[in-house]
Amino acid sequence: MEKDKALSIVKPHLTEKRYIHTIGVMETAVDLAKKYGYDEKKAELAAIFHDYAKYRPENEMKSIIIEQKMPKELLDFHPELWHAPVGSYLVKTEVGIEDVDILNAITYHTTGRPNMTLLEKIIFIADYIEPNRNFPGVEQVRDLVKTNLDGAILQSLKNTIIYLTKKNATIYPDTLYTYNYFIKMKEE
Amino acid sequence: MEKDKALSIVKPHLTEKRYIHTIGVMETAVDLAKKYGYDEKKAELAAIFHDYAKYRPENEMKSIIIEQKMPKELLDFHPELWHAPVGSYLVKTEVGIEDVDILNAITYHTTGRPNMTLLEKIIFIADYIEPNRNFPGVEQVRDLVKTNLDGAILQSLKNTIIYLTKKNATIYPDTLYTYNYFIKMKEE
Repeated sequence: MEKDKALSIVKPHLTEKRYIHTIGVMETAVDLAKKYGYDEKKAELAAIFHDYAKYRPENEMKSIIIEQKMPKELLDFHPELWHAPVGSYLVKTEVGIEDVDILNAITYHTTGRPNMTLLEKIIFIADYIEPNRNFPGVEQVRDLVKTNLDGAILQSLKNTIIYLTKKNATIYPDTLYTYNYFIKMKEE
Repeated sequence: MEKDKALSIVKPHLTEKRYIHTIGVMETAVDLAKKYGYDEKKAELAAIFHDYAKYRPENEMKSIIIEQKMPKELLDFHPELWHAPVGSYLVKTEVGIEDVDILNAITYHTTGRPNMTLLEKIIFIADYIEPNRNFPGVEQVRDLVKTNLDGAILQSLKNTIIYLTKKNATIYPDTLYTYNYFIKMKEE
């Protein structure tokens, strides 16, 4: 699918601010694909659709999680987490994208997972560092990603775990599993 | 079992420093049992034996984890975590203590778990705040435990998660599950 067509499909599903964020993720993902040797068109497409389900009503997302037999424990955690796997499902069924790499990159863009593919890593970190993001620690991750993709992801996970813990928020187990995976990679 | 006999059994298994720590946990656990209405003798006994396996050789602990079909993932994490479930097993088989409440309090004294019993909570937090402990944040938890046992446990888990994350250490999933459990309790 061409970029302009993809953008025209996703735009009505997003707020203006979220559309600007999506453009930022897209440009960052294409840059990272160039740098780390991945298919730029696939990175572009995954980025464009990563937040496709961001504004679906909670009850619609909940029904999809149950009907599609997604991990039940999702429902015990913040609905903010739901749009990633639900988005992957809707991008497949409504938009017709069947590429499993792209669909997985959308599914895991919020929590990551152990053994991420290169595209999953690119979308995960592009979402975290795109130029419109502005929070403590983001500059350090932007610097790291220039030389060390895994190191940047680990730093972003550390920031997220500490941020969530300090604000008394639950932490989705996949976020911890991904963190532990990168720590163990470092130790080996 | 009487306190003096229990202490005489555990002493040869510990260093001098760890024995002093054990006395601290014991006195703290008895105080907490009084305050929160739990059997003081059971709290005393669980505290005395909580670190029984602390200095077992790693290969012995590893064999026990495998032979006794304890969670395999323990072996992917720091051996520091092993002495709790292995200690529970050895306190049963070597010392002859069969009380399941005491054995569970030993098993979960490092990570906690969701739905902890009162004794599990007492041993978990006594281990964290006993008077010989001295690290950033411990005073705050000592204050909290005077009025809010669950709040003190949650604060200790927050401290532990942030501490481990900052030092690039893996976090055992049970620690996260326990943290998430207390966060959800707070939200309800």
